[in-house]
Amino acid sequence: MKTDLKRAAKLLLESDNIVILTHQNPDGDTLGSAFALYYTLTARGKKVRVENEKAIPKKYAFLHEGYRHIDFEPKCVVAVDIASTSLLGKGMESYSDKIDLCIDHHKSNTDYAKQTLLSCSVAAACEIVYDVIIEMDNAISDEALLCIYTGISTDCGCFKYSNTTAKAHDIAALAIERHIDIYRVNQAMFECKSRAQLAIEKTALQNLEFYHGGKCAVIVITHELLEATGAEESDLDALPAMTRQIQGVEVGVVIKEREKGEFKVSMRTGKHPDASVICSQFGGGGHAGAAGCTLYGEVKEVEDKVIKTIGRYI
Amino acid sequence: MKTDLKRAAKLLLESDNIVILTHQNPDGDTLGSAFALYYTLTARGKKVRVENEKAIPKKYAFLHEGYRHIDFEPKCVVAVDIASTSLLGKGMESYSDKIDLCIDHHKSNTDYAKQTLLSCSVAAACEIVYDVIIEMDNAISDEALLCIYTGISTDCGCFKYSNTTAKAHDIAALAIERHIDIYRVNQAMFECKSRAQLAIEKTALQNLEFYHGGKCAVIVITHELLEATGAEESDLDALPAMTRQIQGVEVGVVIKEREKGEFKVSMRTGKHPDASVICSQFGGGGHAGAAGCTLYGEVKEVEDKVIKTIGRYI
Repeated sequence: MKTDLKRAAKLLLESDNIVILTHQNPDGDTLGSAFALYYTLTARGKKVRVENEKAIPKKYAFLHEGYRHIDFEPKCVVAVDIASTSLLGKGMESYSDKIDLCIDHHKSNTDYAKQTLLSCSVAAACEIVYDVIIEMDNAISDEALLCIYTGISTDCGCFKYSNTTAKAHDIAALAIERHIDIYRVNQAMFECKSRAQLAIEKTALQNLEFYHGGKCAVIVITHELLEATGAEESDLDALPAMTRQIQGVEVGVVIKEREKGEFKVSMRTGKHPDASVICSQFGGGGHAGAAGCTLYGEVKEVEDKVIKTIGRYI
Repeated sequence: MKTDLKRAAKLLLESDNIVILTHQNPDGDTLGSAFALYYTLTARGKKVRVENEKAIPKKYAFLHEGYRHIDFEPKCVVAVDIASTSLLGKGMESYSDKIDLCIDHHKSNTDYAKQTLLSCSVAAACEIVYDVIIEMDNAISDEALLCIYTGISTDCGCFKYSNTTAKAHDIAALAIERHIDIYRVNQAMFECKSRAQLAIEKTALQNLEFYHGGKCAVIVITHELLEATGAEESDLDALPAMTRQIQGVEVGVVIKEREKGEFKVSMRTGKHPDASVICSQFGGGGHAGAAGCTLYGEVKEVEDKVIKTIGRYI
């Protein structure tokens, strides 16, 4: 059921033994939301813990430097930046029907919680969490503000994307006025490339090919290539967006060999065509601008199939 | 001679037939400053023109959509974002001793103008130009604000770098509140890569070398390499920042051969060491995190000199 700021803040103020849930494969926004609430609520003497399906990626370690995990029987469960309970991950499924408050910014939110505080016109869930904190305390601590900044900046591509709001900039301005080290955040989130990432980018650029009069850019990364660079799968994350940035490209594709003969296809498109429609031809799906599918066979054969299918939509 | 906001605004208000100079190889900040002033001063009925040594790179075309070039005998010459008259470029040398007002944010400013409005704690010269405009008009037009936003966002890596100020964010927030299409700016500045840029990045990655235990990354682009990719000088703009992003790198350098035997060195550093101090060893300058200098000689000899000097500061 939809709730408003006042009721959401009241629920948190009146609760204790609070568990905060993040989504699987956690990003800066779900983690920033969770730890901003953690710091704010523990400062009020409440028992709080954050739960994630798996370990938090190392690059977000700075968000939970002041965190101390404690065990207790939950009396209030809060989900942050989670559109549907399927995103909790298998290890946290038991919470699915016990979520008291959800704070989220996804249009696709399934309204699974007892109370849902939803706004889709914000840059990040952290922008809503910021409002909740101000509603509770009329102020925000430095450590909570660092978390809020991280969620906002990561979700709007460091103020680059079209979801960037005036308020996102206002909160960033406040963080700088408060002398919070946001440069450290920006460096860790946006300005850091491992040697393995660098090697795989070099390889990717060498293997980049254009099709359909330059409207389609394709990078194929075989298992051997990946191994040769020492990169992990997650080091390829930036490549699909990179193919789409190239002038004239309408469809950018990265074809990555997962295991011998199994290829994960990641597709990015501009306003046109719809990537999810193209990927659905191979049993995949996703969003209009970003979708994926899995194909099996020989590398050349898979590549040809994908390129040919794209040609029908360009 | 140093001046203040009031006197700088007064000079512009009392002047007519104003020529605004940008620096050679113009970037978003010098162009944003120039055209923001152009729109503001022409709206007051003044005759104004902007002069650049060479043609303005196409990607900045949106800044001067409302510009109309007119000829007149200059009565007031303004230099924006120009630290020293050597940066005017050869074609504009004749203005060197005729500059009435300089608006700049470089520590290395040589105080060449009759009046210099200098602040080194801002994100961009555009942040100072914004203040000058508000001082004059107590308001700013949409087209001037678009220019100001462009200068600020390009000079602070879209709010990523350590020079980002609270005021930079405040101005961005204002632009969004005014419904100015800053997403279009962000796409053109940060999300678009030409085929030539792609080719030069590929070449750059192939030529990237590490020194001083991985703390220094160096890319050398000779004139032949540049020609082979079909790239222009401005296509290299993203490379210096890219070298600094690599994990473990404290000093990133791009050495670019301008003409036979003339090398432009672009240096980027983290919090330490100070790039402007290193570049000043070769008669150059700039900011603590981003500086440059020009060296002459054989490529290998220039490269060795730069790497050796960097070693003294790491």
